Amino acid sequence: MKYTPDSSELSHTFGGRSPVLSVKPGTVLELYTEDCFGGLVRDVDDLPSVVCEFPYLNPVTGPFHVEGAEPGDTLAVHFVSITPARDWAVSSTFPHFGALTGTHTTATLHPPLDEVVWRYDVDVDAGLVRYHARRGDFSMELPLDPMHGTAGVAPAAFESRMTIVPDVHGGNMDTPELRAGTTAYFGVNVPGALFALGDGHCRQGDGEVCGTAVEAAMNTVVVFDVIKGAATPTPRFETDDCLMSAGSARPLEDAFRMSQHDLITWTAEMTGLDTLDAYQLISQAGTAPVGNVCDPNYTMLAKVQKKFLGGVRAYEGVHARLREISR
Amino acid sequence: MKYTPDSSELSHTFGGRSPVLSVKPGTVLELYTEDCFGGLVRDVDDLPSVVCEFPYLNPVTGPFHVEGAEPGDTLAVHFVSITPARDWAVSSTFPHFGALTGTHTTATLHPPLDEVVWRYDVDVDAGLVRYHARRGDFSMELPLDPMHGTAGVAPAAFESRMTIVPDVHGGNMDTPELRAGTTAYFGVNVPGALFALGDGHCRQGDGEVCGTAVEAAMNTVVVFDVIKGAATPTPRFETDDCLMSAGSARPLEDAFRMSQHDLITWTAEMTGLDTLDAYQLISQAGTAPVGNVCDPNYTMLAKVQKKFLGGVRAYEGVHARLREISR
Amino acid sequence: MKYTPDSSELSHTFGGRSPVLSVKPGTVLELYTEDCFGGLVRDVDDLPSVVCEFPYLNPVTGPFHVEGAEPGDTLAVHFVSITPARDWAVSSTFPHFGALTGTHTTATLHPPLDEVVWRYDVDVDAGLVRYHARRGDFSMELPLDPMHGTAGVAPAAFESRMTIVPDVHGGNMDTPELRAGTTAYFGVNVPGALFALGDGHCRQGDGEVCGTAVEAAMNTVVVFDVIKGAATPTPRFETDDCLMSAGSARPLEDAFRMSQHDLITWTAEMTGLDTLDAYQLISQAGTAPVGNVCDPNYTMLAKVQKKFLGGVRAYEGVHARLREISR
Amino acid sequence: MKYTPDSSELSHTFGGRSPVLSVKPGTVLELYTEDCFGGLVRDVDDLPSVVCEFPYLNPVTGPFHVEGAEPGDTLAVHFVSITPARDWAVSSTFPHFGALTGTHTTATLHPPLDEVVWRYDVDVDAGLVRYHARRGDFSMELPLDPMHGTAGVAPAAFESRMTIVPDVHGGNMDTPELRAGTTAYFGVNVPGALFALGDGHCRQGDGEVCGTAVEAAMNTVVVFDVIKGAATPTPRFETDDCLMSAGSARPLEDAFRMSQHDLITWTAEMTGLDTLDAYQLISQAGTAPVGNVCDPNYTMLAKVQKKFLGGVRAYEGVHARLREISR
Repeated sequence: MKYTPDSSELSHTFGGRSPVLSVKPGTVLELYTEDCFGGLVRDVDDLPSVVCEFPYLNPVTGPFHVEGAEPGDTLAVHFVSITPARDWAVSSTFPHFGALTGTHTTATLHPPLDEVVWRYDVDVDAGLVRYHARRGDFSMELPLDPMHGTAGVAPAAFESRMTIVPDVHGGNMDTPELRAGTTAYFGVNVPGALFALGDGHCRQGDGEVCGTAVEAAMNTVVVFDVIKGAATPTPRFETDDCLMSAGSARPLEDAFRMSQHDLITWTAEMTGLDTLDAYQLISQAGTAPVGNVCDPNYTMLAKVQKKFLGGVRAYEGVHARLREISR
Repeated sequence: MKYTPDSSELSHTFGGRSPVLSVKPGTVLELYTEDCFGGLVRDVDDLPSVVCEFPYLNPVTGPFHVEGAEPGDTLAVHFVSITPARDWAVSSTFPHFGALTGTHTTATLHPPLDEVVWRYDVDVDAGLVRYHARRGDFSMELPLDPMHGTAGVAPAAFESRMTIVPDVHGGNMDTPELRAGTTAYFGVNVPGALFALGDGHCRQGDGEVCGTAVEAAMNTVVVFDVIKGAATPTPRFETDDCLMSAGSARPLEDAFRMSQHDLITWTAEMTGLDTLDAYQLISQAGTAPVGNVCDPNYTMLAKVQKKFLGGVRAYEGVHARLREISR
Repeated sequence: MKYTPDSSELSHTFGGRSPVLSVKPGTVLELYTEDCFGGLVRDVDDLPSVVCEFPYLNPVTGPFHVEGAEPGDTLAVHFVSITPARDWAVSSTFPHFGALTGTHTTATLHPPLDEVVWRYDVDVDAGLVRYHARRGDFSMELPLDPMHGTAGVAPAAFESRMTIVPDVHGGNMDTPELRAGTTAYFGVNVPGALFALGDGHCRQGDGEVCGTAVEAAMNTVVVFDVIKGAATPTPRFETDDCLMSAGSARPLEDAFRMSQHDLITWTAEMTGLDTLDAYQLISQAGTAPVGNVCDPNYTMLAKVQKKFLGGVRAYEGVHARLREISR
Repeated sequence: MKYTPDSSELSHTFGGRSPVLSVKPGTVLELYTEDCFGGLVRDVDDLPSVVCEFPYLNPVTGPFHVEGAEPGDTLAVHFVSITPARDWAVSSTFPHFGALTGTHTTATLHPPLDEVVWRYDVDVDAGLVRYHARRGDFSMELPLDPMHGTAGVAPAAFESRMTIVPDVHGGNMDTPELRAGTTAYFGVNVPGALFALGDGHCRQGDGEVCGTAVEAAMNTVVVFDVIKGAATPTPRFETDDCLMSAGSARPLEDAFRMSQHDLITWTAEMTGLDTLDAYQLISQAGTAPVGNVCDPNYTMLAKVQKKFLGGVRAYEGVHARLREISR
């Protein structure tokens, strides 16, 4: 099944929208997602604050109603492939947005930093993007590593959230771990889950320091599944080798705490270990990849190799099954 | 005009709801608001986690469509009176909620603190509430100082937020400054503003440390006005003597920064002072009342006596006009 | 007893210094303290970053060895009077210091805000200071309210800390509550306690937003006492009407948590209330005055009126005794 | 040259101590460092809160006076090898210490989590440590990855800091990046720099979540060098492939900001790139390894592969020279 939204079908919230499509678990879905600027920043002279209009930022494709998903279940979304749709991508600073500037909440009396756009060449075959300095003639090739910054479901409690916000429903987590080969798990809050996806990045550094990544439209293939009766308190990810829990909050230590707390209690659940034994094991065996340190909530992950947990099988092996379907 | 909601009319979000009533600017409106527990916690044995059901917490009365209010305008709401509706009120701890406990985001491995309910006697005529210790026979009279914890308008950007969240649209700011005699200003995001009100407190300490105040249903009288073409970036308050700006964010220093930033730039605007001169003046003349340090965002105010600004007239004197109407 | 340091006797740390004087408990001591700029900023053209030299900032007078004070005891310091020593005072912005600017730790890519000095007239008899805008001809009288920003003892664990740092040993708490009439309590970490004092302010707003207050040299009278065998985990203050606990930490909510935690457990101790009962009582009866939101640690206080605790007598009534001596 | 301290020679602060040895730049120094418990926790029944005495925790070996190092210079310390000194190591929870517990500053009313000790087998030849659950019979081998949690120089401004504190002088950064093969750079604050080292870890997870790593005494070989006239504002690290800057602060986003700010401005300096161009490049090419999220300051690193900067040569190639000496 294939779905390419026209621009009037794009959504700017999680929640508060009717589904654009209903899909059955197991369906392989090909999607097109527009970049975070709605495709309006095409060159270095297209300043985002001029060509984009609030709140029409960070559009997502969807939401998709997944049949059979009910509150209390878990939606599994396996990312089969994520491919840049164009041979260019853009990044920029944006007034009062980013980790190293005064912002709306970390309010200072400084005028904004200069708004600058960088245009990257994208070479999918070579697996590279090319950076060009704006104020000098330095260029540099960096590895292509496509991912989605924004993915999630409708929030609980009748909420509707801007797509730029990451929270327990997913949203704009901006973690490089959401790449092809990963299965993402979201707790379902409303019938059909109402999954949506956007904000493709050709690559990003940890923290998305300047506020934007190498932003690109994407052709992406996903497969859905529903795990009945399994609660997922915060987004989780699985790859062939690793398990991860995401935490999105401020200050950053709370994003860290949420993610570690979930990975530790999940580990205890899967292994039968006592909670303090799991606390100790994850403390020595785990890593803590940084997602974003620029969005309305910051995002961190807690990550562990499955082999260190002694062969656990998360969510009844759904990741392996979806891998199989995706081949 | 008088409005008493039945329980099916209560709202649990700002945004995402149709108005219950349309009112003209200048209308004096009498309202009934239920307490934050929906009136279900009546005695010390009514544990909130048992008798209340998520997300049906912190109900608000409204929303009210204020005629003529358009995005870009400011809604002024003057609080004429706030009167406890019953001769009792309640407070409680709640599992993993409050400033001195691990929470959902400040995630720890501790089991929750004990869930305990305190029932206060309320004596409106004497202007007192009476606290009774639960584990000993200590009692203490405290001054009645009625206020609303939750007040605000529909958010921008198609968002809908749980009433428990404070942000730039208002919401659950939980500041004792929202008492009778105060005019609150909110930036309008949607036609009619869609103002709603709830979460009456007979009194609260700064920070609402344990997570709840002396919670009570209220009979409240408000008057609305609309200031056309005046933007209000974050909620502001005015009394006969003082001006205040609210900031809601995490960590707490960001709530402080937002509130101070707004008061300083607003001061510069009203007085014609240079921004750094206003920074200096507020730094020496201002105070910083704490709202809540327990909700999804924390709230602080920046406050200054009008006389220290040399006779400014905020929003063209609307506070004085509404005071006049309310007499 | 009277002590006026010459400039070579000023100290820039708590800890790591030999006492300048040894005093007996009960001694009334008259002190001179220099301002936070070491007296080098005398006019609007004396830019602190030019005339002052790191680390010779924020000098304190002392330390004083108080006879009989041993680790595990509490030092009580009653402030009899605090009087500006000159008829002028100064305030300033300082590059990358203050609440509304990028700083060394809240690191941004912004250049510093302009460095500006304000000179205040000080009229002790009239009880006023006069602010003058630098970029316009606005002037404003503000009430004189003299206080010390910096007061404390030598830290534990062989530490020596710059005077600009507030922590559990006291230091640069920058709270307006440290005014005449207050008794401050500090846990003693080393023999003699080694108390020192400085950073007089003619007044300051909550948070010391711009990074400096109305800075002045002071003539100050204190009386010491030692409470044997009484631990004080974080600085506490007492006035005729109120008790207060200070918390100094980052982020600001941790300063809030520390101060509230101490006031609540101290209340439970003094009244015999159960901890959760004390949590509830302080949650409704307490206030949370903000100290500084600009120093290496932020400072907040938790404060309650003694009458709401039912007639407690802190530290065996030492405040009343010192009040008596001071008359 | 070889130095093994006896227990009376161990230091518990950075600063405030006389050097134990003076060494010339280029000297290869073999050191013994005791574990963070002073070697007193040897088995699961040795509870740290019982067998250790505050402030005699986290002992360091040193300080070493490095000849020719003067304030304004940079000390380079190359880690040639780090080898566990015993065939066992320990880890533990500790009352009110760690990322997922209420602490002294993140003060809550919870009683402490259980204090539990884990004893690891250490197999240097196999390159493994073995974890044993305490409350069940689960065991797991984890890769040995020896590192030092604590390394630094005497602080500026006459300060003396407990070894448990990380800050711009180094200290208890607890980052796995401080392993053999790394060169660490520290700004020199006092003549001789006064470098000290301790807190060996057989391995640790990111964040040292439970508060301690796999703690071990170490035999460690280092080589020193001094880079004259080169300032280093915060600790930096270099490996054959990467450059890193450390930030230590609270909240965690400030540790992130400090580290990213330093790496970006350092990159601009080394490459000649404009600051915003460097901001963009690091935003897409950089990573953000987490050090500790449990100590008095949290530590994060900003890290980039040298090849992405186009062949920079940091500190005039000192890392390569020290690598050469170490072979």
